[in-house]
Amino acid sequence: MSKERIYLFDTTLRDGQQTPGIDFSVEDKIEIAKLLDGFGIDYVEGGYPGANPTDTAFFAQNRTADARFVAFGMTKRAGVSASNDPGLAALLQAKSDAVCFVAKSWDYHVRVALGCTNEENLDSIGASVEAAIAAGKEALVDCEHFFDGFKANPDYALACARTALDAGARWVVLCDTNGGTQPAEVREIVGKVIASGVPGARLGIHAHDDTGQAVANSLAAIEAGARQVQGTLNGIGERCGNANLITLIPTLMLKPLYAERFSTGIPQQGLAGISRLSRAFDELLNRAPEAQAPYVGGSAFATKAGIHASALIKEPATYEHVPPETVGNRRKVMVSDQGGKANFIAELKRRGIDVPRNDQRLDALIAVVKEREAEGYAYEGADASFELLARKMLHTVPEFFNVTSFRCMIERRFDANGNIKTVSEAIVKVVVDGEERMSVAEGHGPVNALDLALRKDLGKFQHEIGDLELADYKVRILNGGTEAITRVLIESHDSTGARWWTVGVSDNIIEASFQALMDSIVYKLMKNREMAGLVAAE
Amino acid sequence: MSKERIYLFDTTLRDGQQTPGIDFSVEDKIEIAKLLDGFGIDYVEGGYPGANPTDTAFFAQNRTADARFVAFGMTKRAGVSASNDPGLAALLQAKSDAVCFVAKSWDYHVRVALGCTNEENLDSIGASVEAAIAAGKEALVDCEHFFDGFKANPDYALACARTALDAGARWVVLCDTNGGTQPAEVREIVGKVIASGVPGARLGIHAHDDTGQAVANSLAAIEAGARQVQGTLNGIGERCGNANLITLIPTLMLKPLYAERFSTGIPQQGLAGISRLSRAFDELLNRAPEAQAPYVGGSAFATKAGIHASALIKEPATYEHVPPETVGNRRKVMVSDQGGKANFIAELKRRGIDVPRNDQRLDALIAVVKEREAEGYAYEGADASFELLARKMLHTVPEFFNVTSFRCMIERRFDANGNIKTVSEAIVKVVVDGEERMSVAEGHGPVNALDLALRKDLGKFQHEIGDLELADYKVRILNGGTEAITRVLIESHDSTGARWWTVGVSDNIIEASFQALMDSIVYKLMKNREMAGLVAAE
Repeated sequence: MSKERIYLFDTTLRDGQQTPGIDFSVEDKIEIAKLLDGFGIDYVEGGYPGANPTDTAFFAQNRTADARFVAFGMTKRAGVSASNDPGLAALLQAKSDAVCFVAKSWDYHVRVALGCTNEENLDSIGASVEAAIAAGKEALVDCEHFFDGFKANPDYALACARTALDAGARWVVLCDTNGGTQPAEVREIVGKVIASGVPGARLGIHAHDDTGQAVANSLAAIEAGARQVQGTLNGIGERCGNANLITLIPTLMLKPLYAERFSTGIPQQGLAGISRLSRAFDELLNRAPEAQAPYVGGSAFATKAGIHASALIKEPATYEHVPPETVGNRRKVMVSDQGGKANFIAELKRRGIDVPRNDQRLDALIAVVKEREAEGYAYEGADASFELLARKMLHTVPEFFNVTSFRCMIERRFDANGNIKTVSEAIVKVVVDGEERMSVAEGHGPVNALDLALRKDLGKFQHEIGDLELADYKVRILNGGTEAITRVLIESHDSTGARWWTVGVSDNIIEASFQALMDSIVYKLMKNREMAGLVAAE
Repeated sequence: MSKERIYLFDTTLRDGQQTPGIDFSVEDKIEIAKLLDGFGIDYVEGGYPGANPTDTAFFAQNRTADARFVAFGMTKRAGVSASNDPGLAALLQAKSDAVCFVAKSWDYHVRVALGCTNEENLDSIGASVEAAIAAGKEALVDCEHFFDGFKANPDYALACARTALDAGARWVVLCDTNGGTQPAEVREIVGKVIASGVPGARLGIHAHDDTGQAVANSLAAIEAGARQVQGTLNGIGERCGNANLITLIPTLMLKPLYAERFSTGIPQQGLAGISRLSRAFDELLNRAPEAQAPYVGGSAFATKAGIHASALIKEPATYEHVPPETVGNRRKVMVSDQGGKANFIAELKRRGIDVPRNDQRLDALIAVVKEREAEGYAYEGADASFELLARKMLHTVPEFFNVTSFRCMIERRFDANGNIKTVSEAIVKVVVDGEERMSVAEGHGPVNALDLALRKDLGKFQHEIGDLELADYKVRILNGGTEAITRVLIESHDSTGARWWTVGVSDNIIEASFQALMDSIVYKLMKNREMAGLVAAE
């Protein structure tokens, strides 16, 4: 039996940008569009070209290969023709496969916010859709406040939808703009819209989480017949956020109620990438992943020693609503974790390190990694630090050099011209081959100064690190308040094109940065030897 | 017309204690029980007396005045009589108004986890309920895995519920233990249970958030006829958490779909205390409130300058699904580089600053905000820095003190015992009333040291900042690489319960932190004066 197709529409880059505290750069947007495109999302809404310089620059190219790349914007203004509206022209000139128009569908808003007549608004919808199609684009219409509008004046709300479809829009999307509609109401209203003659195959749902039911509202609309669902990565969005696609997608693909009837554009085996997708997005926003997030959170399959833990160990499947590996997550029983060893062996093998299962150094390594991860180290995102730690504990990394001490100084004062100036300086003492060397450097900040001083004179190793460069530097505060633990992740690269991440953790940001900088240098020296065949394979 | 009563059952102290990372002390539990009792919750489940020393100590007294205080525990073991089961005896001896038994209702689990026959399990349920009633308690039965059990063997699941009710249980609670059931399934199964003869007035729902639908599942059960709903404060709980009562309660009390049919034990005017309840609970857990939480989050009624902001200012009600003050929250229109003049005026007005539209200082302020936001400042997330900047540019903030210079030193070296040690020290020179003062402090890192030194001696202002504390510290690297620009956001609070965010931006993380720390102190001094009426309203 062939399944009905549900189309996934991501608005992370548009509605997600309305999230208080989130501001994407053009580079952020490019990176996120790539993630979404690669994952199998059908539509990627990139923003509102013409509304701000970031979105305009982002739309200078079509940013997706497989997904339809969507530009968002207003319908034409009342009283001018489509060809005479500069806003519409800018929207249609932006590079995109599709245009999503936002349109008022509540007569009250037409009057109060647009200040035009109901008929003028219908005319704007129809003419804008036709202009988009004439420009060779697929047209979608977001009906703003559709549910409130339908409650107040169902005929007018339906007329807006009808007009869009008659003009050739591929989709009409029913938006619960203020987020207050309940699932039972969504189900009823979507049912009535379809009963009025609008085909479900051209209907979408755009839900907000103001009563914690954006996902439930989206599913209720799908049950009632809608076939496109809009949402964002990790549920970011205006106010309480949009429908969380990271929660919706596994439910659609794994729960028999939906999976038996529907298909999406995401290949079944691709679903295991969803935990990684969610974390990559948080990483990009530089925020800690939500531990309790459905499917992908660190606690989503965790059980504390309690009434369920022993039963869970006996029969995990009956206590888990889906197998954690289907979403790329893992089970955590927070007593003694027996499941880790095989993973470690596989992980080490992948790096060319063979360790027998009964090697005691392996148990020691597992214990150290667990202890450090409890302290805040994140080896998942710092592969070079993990490999270095493993090789050190398996005694295959020489001590190249030893930093006996460092000192950083940051000073803010008035310079000779009476201007405020902040200077940073670092001094490093390092022993190479029994000989002590001292280096000093100034930098843009203490970490930059320390980095420069560390790499200034490593004696006989100096020529090997000439092409080492810092590519990225990330800081995360792991717990709030004044006694915060800081995690630093550093990305390095060299002239061979290799890139590697290292990690440091401390209550002192300079110390954490030092650890990550050191790991980066030592990793590079180790890799040089490995490539030269000087380190024997274990 | 009289409304049907919905009973609210809080399990924060029991199921909430299964949250990874949360461990309540007896004092925590006493405090939380008080909060719940005062708010009008019907049932407060305190824990599992006998299972651990904390819960046993907590149940040495009945901890609620108005709410029914509930002890949780297992039904009697198979093969012993109720009077010979020491676990049951301990449970019945604990001080409580009611006992909530957890009972298996999925035959598969009876066999695998309990290892007894289906009949023995029914006997345990009946005998335990009878024993609780004989001990003078109200009896409730949590039917574990009810929905999975019902799908596998409906007759047996129903027999468990039936047995509990026939033995005199006031409530049978249908639990979606692994959290995977969908709202449509909950609605259908609850309907079937009621159709089989179980009165909805004796049925409860206990939902988990593993597919992000615990609230929707709870409401679906209520729509189908259940009249008790279990959940936790802020949705804490095992794995992805329980149904969030902080979200459920306003929906039940404010959404016409429910409010017109149902009543709860919470007085209507008491609902405005729910934002405070939610924040008090986070405070007790020492964690930052979730900004995007429905109804109570800091962003729940926030709008960034964008397509909605100007309309929102005209007609707030039509963009808000409930009035923010009904839940004790407030509207926020956020400033950002997309914001127009009207937003600025409205935002300033909300802070008690009236500026005429044609005031040139307003144009200057807008220009400075835009320029700074282009540099990386994020005023929408730093309301105190925004207000401070506005008041400075409108010339209403005195220069309280002047930091002429500071110096931070971070040193990593071996201590006398040969251990590596990293120490941070900061020295600050500040001029107050023409007199220079110098302070020095050590801290966990350079920022902590600088914070301590800055607030160590501000002369005549010192007594005013004694209750100022750093609550959170966030760092974001705005662009990659070595010449990175760093944005620091700092949250402060004081003994009045006020919280404010400040921001600093620099290529030097210490300088950025300094700016945010300074803004926090000056903001506090300014607010103190405002409250004392020393700053005249503009």
